[in-house]
This record gives sequence, structure tokens and C-alpha cells, in this order.
Amino acid sequence: MLYMIGLGLGDAKDITVKGLEVVRRCSRVYLETYTSVLTVGKEILEEFYERKLILADREEVEQEADNILKDADISDVAFLVVGDPFGATTHSDLILRATKLGIPYRVIHNASIMNAVGCCGLQLYKFGETVSIVFWTDTWRPESFFDKVKKNRQNGTHTLCLLGKCSAVSLESQGRKIYEPPRYMSVNQAAQQLLEIVQNQRIRGEEPAVTEETLCVGLARVGAEDQKIAAGTLQQMSTVDLGGPLHSLIITGGSLHPLEMEMLSFSESQSIGGL
Amino acid sequence: MLYMIGLGLGDAKDITVKGLEVVRRCSRVYLETYTSVLTVGKEILEEFYERKLILADREEVEQEADNILKDADISDVAFLVVGDPFGATTHSDLILRATKLGIPYRVIHNASIMNAVGCCGLQLYKFGETVSIVFWTDTWRPESFFDKVKKNRQNGTHTLCLLGKCSAVSLESQGRKIYEPPRYMSVNQAAQQLLEIVQNQRIRGEEPAVTEETLCVGLARVGAEDQKIAAGTLQQMSTVDLGGPLHSLIITGGSLHPLEMEMLSFSESQSIGGL
Repeated sequence: MLYMIGLGLGDAKDITVKGLEVVRRCSRVYLETYTSVLTVGKEILEEFYERKLILADREEVEQEADNILKDADISDVAFLVVGDPFGATTHSDLILRATKLGIPYRVIHNASIMNAVGCCGLQLYKFGETVSIVFWTDTWRPESFFDKVKKNRQNGTHTLCLLGKCSAVSLESQGRKIYEPPRYMSVNQAAQQLLEIVQNQRIRGEEPAVTEETLCVGLARVGAEDQKIAAGTLQQMSTVDLGGPLHSLIITGGSLHPLEMEMLSFSESQSIGGL
Repeated sequence: MLYMIGLGLGDAKDITVKGLEVVRRCSRVYLETYTSVLTVGKEILEEFYERKLILADREEVEQEADNILKDADISDVAFLVVGDPFGATTHSDLILRATKLGIPYRVIHNASIMNAVGCCGLQLYKFGETVSIVFWTDTWRPESFFDKVKKNRQNGTHTLCLLGKCSAVSLESQGRKIYEPPRYMSVNQAAQQLLEIVQNQRIRGEEPAVTEETLCVGLARVGAEDQKIAAGTLQQMSTVDLGGPLHSLIITGGSLHPLEMEMLSFSESQSIGGL
């Protein structure tokens, strides 16, 4: 059996009781390392799980899936994913390969940023399509995701902007790709890129769907002991200090429910005004 | 401290290790009973948690919040919620009350239908606004949620339809509301109501955003051992047998990614064709 097990968002103890029991009886345990990070490292997880972990980077999962799935029809193999196994689409590929090989699989779900983001008080069912904001380079400055933000705001829905993923830049060396050490975008950086897109739209004579005054929510380390949430304008988000990764940014969908407003203003951590 | 603890979606062991540790040390443990259900009952939870649970129905949470929060500033009180604590907006109210009383709170997240729905293979970031489909009565047949489905489809996003909630009908008796025993809508019932709305729109000369042939996904008992997923047309959903509650229905957003199509066709349980 292939077990796809979500680890949740905080530390070693955010795994479910069921997930921990499965991990402790599997013959091999892989830890997926490319989509997200916990607040603790491999060694602390190994100590708590009482199992050795095999790190699986993007290369291994995509190119050496057969190794991961080896003997999974006659023994139990666990594949651990920060958050929930279906938070990242890349894991669907592993499941499809298992299915084609006749290997049964089970999913042990957990919290992911896609639902834990409700902790800020914005109502989950009022979120529209989720977008990813990537690091701009000198020559690659995509703005296309902004159309989705625009549609969401036209529909009065909030936009969750995922900032967590590392830069996709990789180098070729002796036929093998080398991935750069992960970099994580901060709420500040995301807000600064958004402000630049707003300016570019004005220069082109377009009416931006978002302005410097649009109410946003910055979130850092959701689910961890030291999580931080800050509500304020997009302009304020460009300078707020939320500490280390992972960060996420929500662009609100315009008019808020009174309960949403109250939750934002009573946020358990800093609120930088604008409410 | 007030602990808001998600229980996940399946059985007693879907609580996180952290959540279980907190439950076992709290002086009072409430189990919220009105928004959703696990596949196991109170007694099994009590045995596994090694704690007595105080059931908290809607009335208690809304009207007797002060009792729940009593002494939470000097002792630890746990409030258990099936899924994630922020899956239902009603829990924000308890947190706001705690905050106003100066009682600190912590949230221990878990999977909820809002993210676990990714198990069907549709990509989570491509979901638009979530809708709730309520039981129709002879005199109350709301169709307004259909506008949201229409907007989602226009944007190419999927719509998660929550069917889990019990009928809101209540009776007044000696000044106290009596809630009817929960009823859970099946995928069949939801699909039949949707087909009726489609017919009504045609009668009114409107172009329906959804037809009998629209690709849908029915899900039952997501996260439990016996979960079922079926992909097919809306017409097929009106007769598919997915067994007991809780059910959810997804109306797809039109064109699917090849990986989404493949996941739906390789679904771990029944696929009723149309793919």
C-alpha cells in the first residue's frame, strides 16, 4: 500500500494519530521536500516518528517514481507531504503511477494553507480562484495571474496568493538538473510586485482592479506557534514585518461581512490598521 | 486558554498528535455537534481521548458561550470541531467572545472538506466560490446560489457544493427553539434539485450555465475508509448510489487539465462513465 500522508503546517506533532501509526509501520518513509516546509527539520521529525526519512526532491519524485513505488504492492510505503497531499498537483502524478502499476493507495489528510487560511477570519467559502505569485527576474515579470485577482474581485471573492514556492530556476550540470536552494517570497515582496503591476496598468490606461488602498491580509507561518496575521492596505503590506517564511497574502474581495471585519480587527496578532 | 481543535473527517484517530495531547490535559472538552459528523460516535471518541465530552449544539454555542468560556483564562478548555475549526463561520463568534473577555486562544488545524476535496483529482486552486445547497420545501425553493455556479463556470473554475448541513427548520416550544434531527442531503437529491433549476431556467428563456451533460463529481465520506468518488454527468449524479452521509458535489468548471481528467478516470472508487 502507498500511503500519502499530510503532515499539517506546524511541527512534528501536527501529523494525525492515524498518520503516525502508519509511518511507524511502513518499510520505507519518504519526505517530500520541494513544495513546502515545516518549522522543524528532518532530524526532529525522524526522532518523533522513530523512523528514518528518505528525502525526495522534485527530481526523484518525477523521475524515480518507480523506486518510491518499489514493492509497495507487497509492503507499506509512506510518502509524507507538508500540509495535505493534494495541496500540490505534483502528487497526483505519483498516485496515477501507483494506480497504473496496480498498487493500492490511501490518503491521510491534514490541514493545508488552502483551508487553514480561514484562521484570519475571512470566510473560506468566499474565496475565489487561488493564484501563485512567483519571483520576478530582470527579464521575466509575469502579470497574467492578475486577471484572476480581477475576476475574483469583480465577483466579490477573496484571492489567496501562494508565495511559498521556491524559484524554479535550475542549472544543467553533467546532464543533471541542480535546483537552487529554496527562496521564499515574503508578503512585502509580493505586495511590492503587486504595486508595480497596479502602476503598469495605470500607465497602460487600464483601470486596476486593485489599488494601494485595497484591504489585504498578510499571514506568516500559519498553524505554527508563532504565526502572525496582519490586516491592512496593500501599501501597508509592502512594509509590514511578519518574520520568517512561509508567507501568504490575501487580497480581499471588496465588501466584507461584519463578522469578517470584526475577526480581522481582533486578529490574534498585530493589526496594522486600516480597519 | 481556549483551544479550537479540528478533528479531521474520518474517525477518532484523525485528530492530530498535538490535538490529542491538548484534549487529554484540558479541564473541559466540548464537542460541537451541529455543523458536521464523523463516522464514529461520542462514546468511541471519549474512549480514545480518555476524556468525557460535553456535547454543544447550536443553541449552547450561540447562547451559552459564557459557560463554555468559563474559567478559560485560568484553565484549559477545548472546543472540538469536525473538520477544521474555521470550516464553519459560526466558530468565529466563539473566538470573538473569547478575545473580548481577554481569554487567549489557539487553533489546532486539521483537514476539512474545503481542502480534502482535492482527493478527487481536481486541482484545488481552480475552485471558485463555494456554495451550499439546502433542502427545498414546498414553499421555499431557493435558486440564488446558482448565480455563483454560473460565475464560477464563466471563469472556468470548479464549484464545491456543500450538502452536509441539516435542515435549518426549527420549532418554537415554550420560548425555546427545538432543532429537528439532522438530515443530510445526498448527491442524488442535490443533482435532482439542480436539474430542476436548469429546467426552470429554460422555461424562463434563460441559457443555463449548467446542463444535464455537465461533468460533475460526487463524493461521499471523504477521508473515511469507505469514501466513494464518482465522476459523471449531472444527470448521472441524480441516480448514482454513494451510500451514507456526508456527501458533497462538485460542478466542474468546463475544460479540465489532462491530469485532472486522468485522476477522475482513475478514481480510486467507482467511475460511472462519461469520461
